[in-house]
Amino acid sequence: MKNSKNKARILIDCTDAKGLVYLVSKVFFQRGLNIDSNQEFVDKGSGKFFMRSVVSGHFNAKDLESELLSVLPTHANLQLVTPEKKKIVLLVTKESHALGDILIRHSAGELDADIQAVIGNHKTLEQLVARFDIPFHYVSALGVNRMEHEYEVMGKINSYDFDYIVLAKYMRILTENFVNTYKQKIINIHHSFLPAFIGANPYKQAFERGVKIIGATAHFVTRDLDEGPIIAQNIIPVNHRFDWRDMQRAGRDVEKVVLSRALSLVLNDRVFIHGNKTVVF
Amino acid sequence: MKNSKNKARILIDCTDAKGLVYLVSKVFFQRGLNIDSNQEFVDKGSGKFFMRSVVSGHFNAKDLESELLSVLPTHANLQLVTPEKKKIVLLVTKESHALGDILIRHSAGELDADIQAVIGNHKTLEQLVARFDIPFHYVSALGVNRMEHEYEVMGKINSYDFDYIVLAKYMRILTENFVNTYKQKIINIHHSFLPAFIGANPYKQAFERGVKIIGATAHFVTRDLDEGPIIAQNIIPVNHRFDWRDMQRAGRDVEKVVLSRALSLVLNDRVFIHGNKTVVF
Amino acid sequence: MKNSKNKARILIDCTDAKGLVYLVSKVFFQRGLNIDSNQEFVDKGSGKFFMRSVVSGHFNAKDLESELLSVLPTHANLQLVTPEKKKIVLLVTKESHALGDILIRHSAGELDADIQAVIGNHKTLEQLVARFDIPFHYVSALGVNRMEHEYEVMGKINSYDFDYIVLAKYMRILTENFVNTYKQKIINIHHSFLPAFIGANPYKQAFERGVKIIGATAHFVTRDLDEGPIIAQNIIPVNHRFDWRDMQRAGRDVEKVVLSRALSLVLNDRVFIHGNKTVVF
Amino acid sequence: MKNSKNKARILIDCTDAKGLVYLVSKVFFQRGLNIDSNQEFVDKGSGKFFMRSVVSGHFNAKDLESELLSVLPTHANLQLVTPEKKKIVLLVTKESHALGDILIRHSAGELDADIQAVIGNHKTLEQLVARFDIPFHYVSALGVNRMEHEYEVMGKINSYDFDYIVLAKYMRILTENFVNTYKQKIINIHHSFLPAFIGANPYKQAFERGVKIIGATAHFVTRDLDEGPIIAQNIIPVNHRFDWRDMQRAGRDVEKVVLSRALSLVLNDRVFIHGNKTVVF
Repeated sequence: MKNSKNKARILIDCTDAKGLVYLVSKVFFQRGLNIDSNQEFVDKGSGKFFMRSVVSGHFNAKDLESELLSVLPTHANLQLVTPEKKKIVLLVTKESHALGDILIRHSAGELDADIQAVIGNHKTLEQLVARFDIPFHYVSALGVNRMEHEYEVMGKINSYDFDYIVLAKYMRILTENFVNTYKQKIINIHHSFLPAFIGANPYKQAFERGVKIIGATAHFVTRDLDEGPIIAQNIIPVNHRFDWRDMQRAGRDVEKVVLSRALSLVLNDRVFIHGNKTVVF
Repeated sequence: MKNSKNKARILIDCTDAKGLVYLVSKVFFQRGLNIDSNQEFVDKGSGKFFMRSVVSGHFNAKDLESELLSVLPTHANLQLVTPEKKKIVLLVTKESHALGDILIRHSAGELDADIQAVIGNHKTLEQLVARFDIPFHYVSALGVNRMEHEYEVMGKINSYDFDYIVLAKYMRILTENFVNTYKQKIINIHHSFLPAFIGANPYKQAFERGVKIIGATAHFVTRDLDEGPIIAQNIIPVNHRFDWRDMQRAGRDVEKVVLSRALSLVLNDRVFIHGNKTVVF
Repeated sequence: MKNSKNKARILIDCTDAKGLVYLVSKVFFQRGLNIDSNQEFVDKGSGKFFMRSVVSGHFNAKDLESELLSVLPTHANLQLVTPEKKKIVLLVTKESHALGDILIRHSAGELDADIQAVIGNHKTLEQLVARFDIPFHYVSALGVNRMEHEYEVMGKINSYDFDYIVLAKYMRILTENFVNTYKQKIINIHHSFLPAFIGANPYKQAFERGVKIIGATAHFVTRDLDEGPIIAQNIIPVNHRFDWRDMQRAGRDVEKVVLSRALSLVLNDRVFIHGNKTVVF
Repeated sequence: MKNSKNKARILIDCTDAKGLVYLVSKVFFQRGLNIDSNQEFVDKGSGKFFMRSVVSGHFNAKDLESELLSVLPTHANLQLVTPEKKKIVLLVTKESHALGDILIRHSAGELDADIQAVIGNHKTLEQLVARFDIPFHYVSALGVNRMEHEYEVMGKINSYDFDYIVLAKYMRILTENFVNTYKQKIINIHHSFLPAFIGANPYKQAFERGVKIIGATAHFVTRDLDEGPIIAQNIIPVNHRFDWRDMQRAGRDVEKVVLSRALSLVLNDRVFIHGNKTVVF
């Protein structure tokens, strides 16, 4: 498929230097490529340059990559992605709203991803997943320790080809080993407006604190479940009439929309991880 | 002014019991009073009943109070407030946005309060306050310890008749003595979406954490500056292009609007303090 | 089932008069009923009184109704509703997001309604509905006129027992006959922030106008599709990078959440229709 | 001041063509200029290219302009702006919130503009403006016709050097002559979420329609007061308890924040007018 007419997303992240936009756009220009869209950002604090270009035209991916690398600073990260559907594996527990939202989008062809499988530490959602003809694996945590359980979950995950693991309200704490195994590949929805209410039952915490707004946060998972780079957040107002279950109920609408929004950004290669933050184009 | 035709806000907070709405509305009915508006709330967790009624008609305040108390459970809190302008004293440091918003509302007759004075631990805002013909007192913290400084501030405050002290971006930590002296009378605007980013420079913290939303919180001040009952909160989206100063700048619009909103609620007797929370009608 | 211990939602809407809260709460009190929650509103313009009380205790519904009516002004509307699941019929066309959201909530037991059937003027959503074991009826509009098509749709609707008809992105204009047949029973989601962009393809209109915010509106359907009493609205920011299809895509998340929110309010008997407006408790 | 080290905002808007980013960034690169920030957008519908670059370094403005024009398509619009404070004239009527917000920002040095004068068709705001030592001109509309009044207002405006005219709740309809005289220079705040509620008293209209959200719109003024390119919008939730005056009161906070936000964008040369829309970087 050499030099066929196609489209690519070019993601560059490197040390900032004078002329980077010029040097990169020169490569595109000289190869006769169209820039469909282009966004750059320089983080002055760290001196890092980020660029996402969508180009179309005739090109050989390998050649284009080499040429781009040749004009970029050493240690530049370059990704040339041809926009095809990514593959995801979902981890769930009992709540259906986040999973359900993803399943509906998937069935309507609006997800930009193929769901390979859903893995649950409870059987609760098995039937829902079955309705969509998607494999569901029940991996019970009963009678096994955390390591053993995770080992089995990882076995299931690894039996699939996947780009991202999506924790769609997976209510288990992950070990450092798990997180390190899938670095920058795990996306979680946390049921609070992080960094408020880290840890267990954020809605109870929010209720106890008497907040007037609750929220949800989609983020990459690093060592600590609730500490990774934030991709998207949103909120919803509450008041004194909400007990914590009302907050939980109201929060679900935010959670599912924020997770799906974050997923859409990630699946369209719009998110750079930058230390413990993200750059989202 | 006995029995003249007037208006009152009746605020009741007491142990819940069967028939409270009936017993209270019976008093209003038998006295021929109109209920202009009426709101109730029962907090099931604590078994507390809250009611705010606005009534109009001919009544003697003392009599009405006694009669209401006679039908309420023992230890009921009852406030009968005739809606006249409250008095406030403002404490400020250097930033003008929260103060300015209040001054503009005040000068347009939209504040529901008379500003008695503004006290600053810096001289920065003296001129702005002078423009509005309001007394400004500069109480320097230079060369004195926290106690001494606060003592002088309290002296200035106490030289005025006031209902509430408003911290309009007053960047000093208050002692327990100060807070206890003015219990339930101090309103603060905190420049974060509490309980996220407690403490110093929340915008820097928010920037470091890479959040996608920042906020502001207006609350009553209790022992800890950032821990009191929340009255109002609001947020604004940010992104990776915002450094912490941009966040601070964007945050100011939220801060001033949230503080003014909270003030309006408090000045209209719409806020009950309920433990570390508020009930806002 | 006389006098058994139960719960009821009492909805009153009548001409305002002095003492209504007293008279109604007296009935509750004398019968030993608990008021679980209570909300009132007087619309001063029209002189109308609205009240929604949730009471629990032992009562005979008929007796309670008669007694309440005996203390209310003539022509008062009184509804005593025992909170059981309502029944709905859904009308759809091709888009799955609003329907899907309702199906997922339904399958999780979070809808407060039983879905009796889904009727589509296209076959597109047949498979999705089948996944949830709910009857789907395809009523083609091909080769028939509007009257004939609607006649068949009404036949299908009428073959079910239902409380509300939900237009979950049903892209057909309804006749006056249809709307009058199901007065105050049809809930629609309109894909704009009404009254902006009435009529066909609001996203194209929004794009042409260059708005920076788009929205969605859930409302009861009266004679004109987009003119009925509004139940709930919400919005989402957009910018110049959104073409109308991007707006449509972004709008779907708002549409489905607003429709589900409105449904939840209606199904919990929290919405009074008041002329062309709603009172929502 | 040839070739001194400085900063410039370069605004380009022209027919799209292959290589524009390359050609422009080449100019910057070859002159040794730093790109501090850079944003581009191609409107596919109209085939128009928009670019805003902030560059710093040593350059002669005239030379840089000529060289840029030489690489751009014919009829390209190019603006090279050195970021200094712009000048504005404000037009007001009676309401102080929008004006007040601008005055406070101005007095705190946060406005990015110098206020040259305030012109009012009422005397109401004279004192407020005087407090800030800014010229106020009262141009009464009494006893004169629209033309005569506007003629006098224009005389006052033209006596100042200004970049933009800001209608900070100026409640007069402008003639076509006025609007054409100051093309792309008039910024208005409209008290509704346009295009909803065009025309007089939008809050009354919103109240009549029973909306659950109200908003405000800042826009450039073209022939029709409420039809020009939208710069910024925002909203606030309302409910059945709001009469139109409550909506008006609540709306003021949105109006002033939206106007100030729009002003900040325009004053920082972040807004391109594109037909009846804007591109906002």
